[in-house]
Amino acid sequence: MRDLLERVADGDLTPVQAEAELAGYVTDDAGRFDAARERRRGIPEAILADGKTPAQVAGLASVALETTGRALLTRVDDDHATALESALADDHPAATLERRGSTLVAHADGYERPTLEATVGVVTAGTVDGPVADETQVVLEEVGATVERIDDVGVAALDRILDQLERLRAVDVLVVVAGREGALPTVVAGLVDVPVIAVPVSSGYGHGGDGEAALLGMLQSCTVLSVVNVDAGFVAGAQAALIARAIDAAGQRNGD
Amino acid sequence: MRDLLERVADGDLTPVQAEAELAGYVTDDAGRFDAARERRRGIPEAILADGKTPAQVAGLASVALETTGRALLTRVDDDHATALESALADDHPAATLERRGSTLVAHADGYERPTLEATVGVVTAGTVDGPVADETQVVLEEVGATVERIDDVGVAALDRILDQLERLRAVDVLVVVAGREGALPTVVAGLVDVPVIAVPVSSGYGHGGDGEAALLGMLQSCTVLSVVNVDAGFVAGAQAALIARAIDAAGQRNGD
Amino acid sequence: MRDLLERVADGDLTPVQAEAELAGYVTDDAGRFDAARERRRGIPEAILADGKTPAQVAGLASVALETTGRALLTRVDDDHATALESALADDHPAATLERRGSTLVAHADGYERPTLEATVGVVTAGTVDGPVADETQVVLEEVGATVERIDDVGVAALDRILDQLERLRAVDVLVVVAGREGALPTVVAGLVDVPVIAVPVSSGYGHGGDGEAALLGMLQSCTVLSVVNVDAGFVAGAQAALIARAIDAAGQRNGD
Amino acid sequence: MRDLLERVADGDLTPVQAEAELAGYVTDDAGRFDAARERRRGIPEAILADGKTPAQVAGLASVALETTGRALLTRVDDDHATALESALADDHPAATLERRGSTLVAHADGYERPTLEATVGVVTAGTVDGPVADETQVVLEEVGATVERIDDVGVAALDRILDQLERLRAVDVLVVVAGREGALPTVVAGLVDVPVIAVPVSSGYGHGGDGEAALLGMLQSCTVLSVVNVDAGFVAGAQAALIARAIDAAGQRNGD
Amino acid sequence: MRDLLERVADGDLTPVQAEAELAGYVTDDAGRFDAARERRRGIPEAILADGKTPAQVAGLASVALETTGRALLTRVDDDHATALESALADDHPAATLERRGSTLVAHADGYERPTLEATVGVVTAGTVDGPVADETQVVLEEVGATVERIDDVGVAALDRILDQLERLRAVDVLVVVAGREGALPTVVAGLVDVPVIAVPVSSGYGHGGDGEAALLGMLQSCTVLSVVNVDAGFVAGAQAALIARAIDAAGQRNGD
Amino acid sequence: MRDLLERVADGDLTPVQAEAELAGYVTDDAGRFDAARERRRGIPEAILADGKTPAQVAGLASVALETTGRALLTRVDDDHATALESALADDHPAATLERRGSTLVAHADGYERPTLEATVGVVTAGTVDGPVADETQVVLEEVGATVERIDDVGVAALDRILDQLERLRAVDVLVVVAGREGALPTVVAGLVDVPVIAVPVSSGYGHGGDGEAALLGMLQSCTVLSVVNVDAGFVAGAQAALIARAIDAAGQRNGD
Amino acid sequence: MRDLLERVADGDLTPVQAEAELAGYVTDDAGRFDAARERRRGIPEAILADGKTPAQVAGLASVALETTGRALLTRVDDDHATALESALADDHPAATLERRGSTLVAHADGYERPTLEATVGVVTAGTVDGPVADETQVVLEEVGATVERIDDVGVAALDRILDQLERLRAVDVLVVVAGREGALPTVVAGLVDVPVIAVPVSSGYGHGGDGEAALLGMLQSCTVLSVVNVDAGFVAGAQAALIARAIDAAGQRNGD
Amino acid sequence: MRDLLERVADGDLTPVQAEAELAGYVTDDAGRFDAARERRRGIPEAILADGKTPAQVAGLASVALETTGRALLTRVDDDHATALESALADDHPAATLERRGSTLVAHADGYERPTLEATVGVVTAGTVDGPVADETQVVLEEVGATVERIDDVGVAALDRILDQLERLRAVDVLVVVAGREGALPTVVAGLVDVPVIAVPVSSGYGHGGDGEAALLGMLQSCTVLSVVNVDAGFVAGAQAALIARAIDAAGQRNGD
Repeated sequence: MRDLLERVADGDLTPVQAEAELAGYVTDDAGRFDAARERRRGIPEAILADGKTPAQVAGLASVALETTGRALLTRVDDDHATALESALADDHPAATLERRGSTLVAHADGYERPTLEATVGVVTAGTVDGPVADETQVVLEEVGATVERIDDVGVAALDRILDQLERLRAVDVLVVVAGREGALPTVVAGLVDVPVIAVPVSSGYGHGGDGEAALLGMLQSCTVLSVVNVDAGFVAGAQAALIARAIDAAGQRNGD
Repeated sequence: MRDLLERVADGDLTPVQAEAELAGYVTDDAGRFDAARERRRGIPEAILADGKTPAQVAGLASVALETTGRALLTRVDDDHATALESALADDHPAATLERRGSTLVAHADGYERPTLEATVGVVTAGTVDGPVADETQVVLEEVGATVERIDDVGVAALDRILDQLERLRAVDVLVVVAGREGALPTVVAGLVDVPVIAVPVSSGYGHGGDGEAALLGMLQSCTVLSVVNVDAGFVAGAQAALIARAIDAAGQRNGD
Repeated sequence: MRDLLERVADGDLTPVQAEAELAGYVTDDAGRFDAARERRRGIPEAILADGKTPAQVAGLASVALETTGRALLTRVDDDHATALESALADDHPAATLERRGSTLVAHADGYERPTLEATVGVVTAGTVDGPVADETQVVLEEVGATVERIDDVGVAALDRILDQLERLRAVDVLVVVAGREGALPTVVAGLVDVPVIAVPVSSGYGHGGDGEAALLGMLQSCTVLSVVNVDAGFVAGAQAALIARAIDAAGQRNGD
Repeated sequence: MRDLLERVADGDLTPVQAEAELAGYVTDDAGRFDAARERRRGIPEAILADGKTPAQVAGLASVALETTGRALLTRVDDDHATALESALADDHPAATLERRGSTLVAHADGYERPTLEATVGVVTAGTVDGPVADETQVVLEEVGATVERIDDVGVAALDRILDQLERLRAVDVLVVVAGREGALPTVVAGLVDVPVIAVPVSSGYGHGGDGEAALLGMLQSCTVLSVVNVDAGFVAGAQAALIARAIDAAGQRNGD
Repeated sequence: MRDLLERVADGDLTPVQAEAELAGYVTDDAGRFDAARERRRGIPEAILADGKTPAQVAGLASVALETTGRALLTRVDDDHATALESALADDHPAATLERRGSTLVAHADGYERPTLEATVGVVTAGTVDGPVADETQVVLEEVGATVERIDDVGVAALDRILDQLERLRAVDVLVVVAGREGALPTVVAGLVDVPVIAVPVSSGYGHGGDGEAALLGMLQSCTVLSVVNVDAGFVAGAQAALIARAIDAAGQRNGD
Repeated sequence: MRDLLERVADGDLTPVQAEAELAGYVTDDAGRFDAARERRRGIPEAILADGKTPAQVAGLASVALETTGRALLTRVDDDHATALESALADDHPAATLERRGSTLVAHADGYERPTLEATVGVVTAGTVDGPVADETQVVLEEVGATVERIDDVGVAALDRILDQLERLRAVDVLVVVAGREGALPTVVAGLVDVPVIAVPVSSGYGHGGDGEAALLGMLQSCTVLSVVNVDAGFVAGAQAALIARAIDAAGQRNGD
Repeated sequence: MRDLLERVADGDLTPVQAEAELAGYVTDDAGRFDAARERRRGIPEAILADGKTPAQVAGLASVALETTGRALLTRVDDDHATALESALADDHPAATLERRGSTLVAHADGYERPTLEATVGVVTAGTVDGPVADETQVVLEEVGATVERIDDVGVAALDRILDQLERLRAVDVLVVVAGREGALPTVVAGLVDVPVIAVPVSSGYGHGGDGEAALLGMLQSCTVLSVVNVDAGFVAGAQAALIARAIDAAGQRNGD
Repeated sequence: MRDLLERVADGDLTPVQAEAELAGYVTDDAGRFDAARERRRGIPEAILADGKTPAQVAGLASVALETTGRALLTRVDDDHATALESALADDHPAATLERRGSTLVAHADGYERPTLEATVGVVTAGTVDGPVADETQVVLEEVGATVERIDDVGVAALDRILDQLERLRAVDVLVVVAGREGALPTVVAGLVDVPVIAVPVSSGYGHGGDGEAALLGMLQSCTVLSVVNVDAGFVAGAQAALIARAIDAAGQRNGD
């Protein structure tokens, strides 16, 4: 404790970093960022931009960068992205910023991503499932897993799935993202022998079109699946990340 | 009209037959039987046994036999079947009686089934879908369509479906019956170019287990399906029968 | 295969057409268009404009025109239509473009629609059902079926239905489109002996006003109906098209 | 008040009748019977047998007979009926007892039913709607309205409704009882110019089969209806009785 | 028929009036207006403005004025009202126009409202129920019933209801409009002996806030009510109008 | 700790009591009983008999008696009660046993109930609400609150509520139990100035008849209520008990 | 009464105050304000700004200030606040105005808040729950309770809750506000022995994201909770205020 | 293939085993058993006894024993168990049979369970969750994972969870089983850094009591969870088994 305060006194540690170190999280006007979550849970804390103002989002991202070297944002719109870009230009000019659909990742200068010895397949049924799968992919890349992305293999044209059979069978874990009737995870799980996490998507129309048909279908699957909430690409990615970490740890345990 | 009454007077027509001829249906203590439905709608009137007493069911079946030469009963239990058997033994000793799961058909002596130049595939995902598919099959046989029954091709093991591809593609219409997540009609419809009617089944458990997951999934299908209510094997069969009749009629029209 | 590449080399085939020929579909920035769907399923691939940008819609329509000679778009708004018009003016100046409510069809110069020997009735209860029925009608016209459109025959004034009885009984298949309580398909199906496909519409207000009352009523119908999802005019049209194709095929089979 | 007590003392009034006169209702072990309801609300208090023991039902019926000269019971089963019969044999040997399906009415010796100058039509779609319509009919008869019962006019065979048009148009109020898709009240209301009260029935199966499809359809009706809860034959009858009373009163007002 | 055409030829009848006379309704670009509805059903045809363009609304109102001497519009916004005002200024300068909340009525010059010998109470629980009750009131005024409006008597302050007891008991029929928990119709129906029609309102928030709590509560009422859909002030008014007509007719019948 | 073991060794404490003292709860074959709950939460641990065998219930009741001097059981049927009676006869012959509907309380010989200086009103709308209110009353009596029970004051007859106004206003807290439309708590809360806890009851029929109408109505109340789940008489009693304890404590605090 | 009119005549009482005194509420163009509610129910009348125009809100606030010395507004947006500010500047220049999120309180010059001898804890799981908790806090402050606010103690990081254990156990009543899965009130109620009122918040996404998951979870809690509707911070505060008043009263009763 | 037939001819292989080897599954009168599922999916095929007759269950179990050396049955009742015991006594006298609640496992003589180098924690909130967790545990034991069972750690008494923290943190994967509000998986997932699979249980009562509250709460969890359907202990166990297999495989890969 004294040591920590001395490091602040010496300027080795900003007050913000010290607060995160001590309390596990930092609170400022934009809200609260849980800097210790990754250490505690093994998965990065994501900033959900939806429902926050651009200024709040930029503020939280700055705190994240400062305390963990990385900021991971989901469901950002153009205003959020613009606000973040200019905030970074001002406060963290050396940071890098990548956008994938509605997902954004910033890394502090010199940040090094961890690596995990595990491969996760991220599979979509159609174009509309892309943004949800992007959330999944980004969180997996941030924890260091290898991501194998397989798109556009909807069940209405089985040969596209069968064409990808080899790739589907080469990964350690699968996240399968599908809307409408949500049958893809069931069909995929019947073809492989690894855990499959199913993500229902709120595409579709009329009754069950808000993802309810897909969610119920995945819960009722006649194969073995576990499921996350509608459009919860981040949660699926984080759950796959925890499995990837367990696989990596087992490999290291026995590799010694 | 006078002619009809004279035929009654002559004993050529029973009063029951005359009533059916005149009013289109017969009313007795057991309820009302719509003898003219088949002529009017092209599909036989079925007697839904569920919720009726064995005596009521036997009574209605007798009326059906007397006025149309056939009785078609759905959702019969053992008590219904026993009551019907003894009623037939008494009143229609020459009638034949066939039971398929919870579906029963009796034919008067000398009854001749119509024939239709059309083949309907009736496909199930698993054993539990059998009784619903039986309803479908019976009504199709009664209108004279050729039925191609394909069982146990659930989507959890795709090779079983692919093994049946040739048979699936050889029919004019398909009725696909499936519970749980109800993905089979979607997968099948992606493989063929004939109309597919989907029937959700109330198997399963937990949320959506009363057939809701299957029904919503079929309504949301990313292929082209039309759907009937949960467990409505009879309705699907009748709808397929109407399509089969249209196909048969077109064949005859042009066959002349 | 070599032949195909040679045709590309000779300029007989554009690279886009070759891709569609080989893979069954074309992928560009606007998404994916399944050029082989019509061959595989017998019904044209429609481009759902709702949720896509005008540029994406115009892009996909261009691909469709180039590979299949036709582009069929549903749920287009004015911006989509304008974008498409100017894209066609630039890239396909000889193409024709027709708009019916929120449905658009473009044909390449010299495109010839197929013809099917079958008539489908498309029936609406009220003005509000028009746009949904238009989707149905357009897909039927594109596959070459004869369409008999009967509007404004809601059940609140039975004489309007009875006035149309002759027309209703002259077709091979019926698609009946109705919102609010959705009783029209039931009443119509009681008057004819051809298959009736029911389409619930999301008109109405208060409880069940999003099409739920109509959908449930159609699933519970005391006559024989098959049903599609709320506002699914395209799906109903495609299902009717498949039945029309089966009828046409039967006629040709026996006509030889 | 003194007068009332003197009448009890003189034996002109039983203590039970006095309690009912004073408090408006009588409480005994079987529960509470609201003897003043008819005076206050114009409709008889009904005893809902469902969920009560045979002894409780018989006890309440005795109180009703004693205080109002009549007992009206709904949803009785055979045990309730038997218990009531023997209770009446013991305590009210001169009372009369009528059963109509699951509805029972007992009248004290010499009881005279009121009469109302108004006719209410009670219409059903099918046999299964009978018991619900019986509740409606009994309460109407007890208030003295003329009841015109019209059965079995389901919308699947329109000519049966049209055959009854004259009778439908001859009444002052209509109660229309229907299950499954519940379209009959809508069709009837389009043919008449009197108030129509719609009663959904919990027949049917699968989704919406518990009366939900019928209820939603009636709430969404494209004609003018008011609606009661599923299977609420008694409530519909009581509401029609209040309208009949208002009609009767208007007639008397101006008849003077 | 000839007579009608001669009146057109003589200019006694516009072509629009002749069409309405012959077909019962008039169809123009703005849609269809059912001019014969009032004669057939006893209640005026209302034009639902919501979802129509100002021009369509103005067009339909002109047709209504021309054929029936009156236009009744519900759920109008300011744009609809402005469009209608200028249309009337142009085409029907002598017509009068009244707006009550979102309800509008126009009368042709010299139009005389019918009168009915019946009084209907229209009761609201709070200010938010006003616009729904206004629809009820306008339709009642148009058929000629006397309307007794009683506002702001929510159940949270019982004394306000009790203060109005005399007025509540002086009418022939009651329409009670309430949102949130919707208890007012139940409380009112316990205090009077006339028919009460309950209208749930979509005020409130959170679960059941879209009128579902009020609708379910009214369907479950422990008194006798009939119910219309959420916010269906027009339907409740029309149903009350039919009852008022029956009362008026009975009075006239016996008054002779 | 040593002290405790010595008391066991001396026979001052049974092993069961020691386990409860140490771990807070006792586990035997019948399940787990949380002896420390009352100390920790201020409300007695109740044994929910529904879903347990008579033997399990008797076993848990014995443990409860032994460790806390009292056993409180909810939703017991006759078999549970009989099993408990004979278990007590064998093991705790001096214990007393009281049954109130489906609620049972046993007290060890010499047990003294606590007393709280606070009065709670328990109000029901009708007879059917009695068993739920009994649960509430029993838990309140066990914590020592004074209970004022007011029955049969349903909103359909307002004068009964108004008759009880004085008693309603004399208590410190109110629990109001009502099924069907559940309006009673709203009406009562408008008449008093103490906290009202509302309990929906699963009486009723048709839509919303499982307590949903009452629950939604209470959540939407236009007065101030807090609510518990359907039929949760025990939870409401326990919540009222906690309020009564807070009132009692405040009295004692300031009474010193 | 005469006295009151004389005070108006003397100018001691404005006509508005007199109306409030006499009728309990004041009605002007902006609607109705219930000035007597606090006296009758012990909790201040709040003006729900949502759904009202800025002018209406300002008008009602002026009435409130004039008759009760205070105006309490919930769910105000910036336009409401601006309108109110300028209205106060004009009409009540000495009044003070405080805004907390979407809640506003104005006090007339010299207004003195009551005080209650009771402390209420207001606990939130995350930042998103703040505005709902603010409503709770404001109403509690207005009745004079001491508020202990504890923020950001979501169950995903138990140590934050455990860190606050002492503060949680020091209050008389708790209001716990939580969205998503809504587990916080259950966890808190297991740690304290005072009444806990749970408020579900409509944060979250996908299924159950509108507060339904939280509401159901709180109704199903395995500890003792009472619950209010989704986002009903004001109702929870008012209910806690009534409990605080009862505690305060008990203290004063015994303090004498 | 020839080899296989020769082994049948030689009696090394029964015809049943040969059928399983060839087709992957065996069909007899009792239904179909998928003998190849374990090889294909890595998880044993379970026989769901619920809904099958005792004879069917015994028949399928015999087939399972014969083809895979093991039979795993879920949701068995006493009749199923008795039938199976006598079937084994007759046909497989050397087989062993273990019952855990409603789960049964039989092993052929000499059967050796596989082993996996991975530990799975199976956690329950209360006694009522036991049978669901037993399904999970049995499937995990059958694939050879080490199971760490932790019972009775419901969130209402946090110290019991905290007492188990070390055990919770020592496993590779967690399955957490909870009913009512289903908060336990969320609390546990906040304390560990391994994947947590949540299983909602259909305990509870009133609204959300069929497991819906728990399911929604788990889908909405503010930590990272994946979820299976209500009561789906087998599915959760199978998913955990697939993760355990992946961990084991990684260990072996790197262990070489």
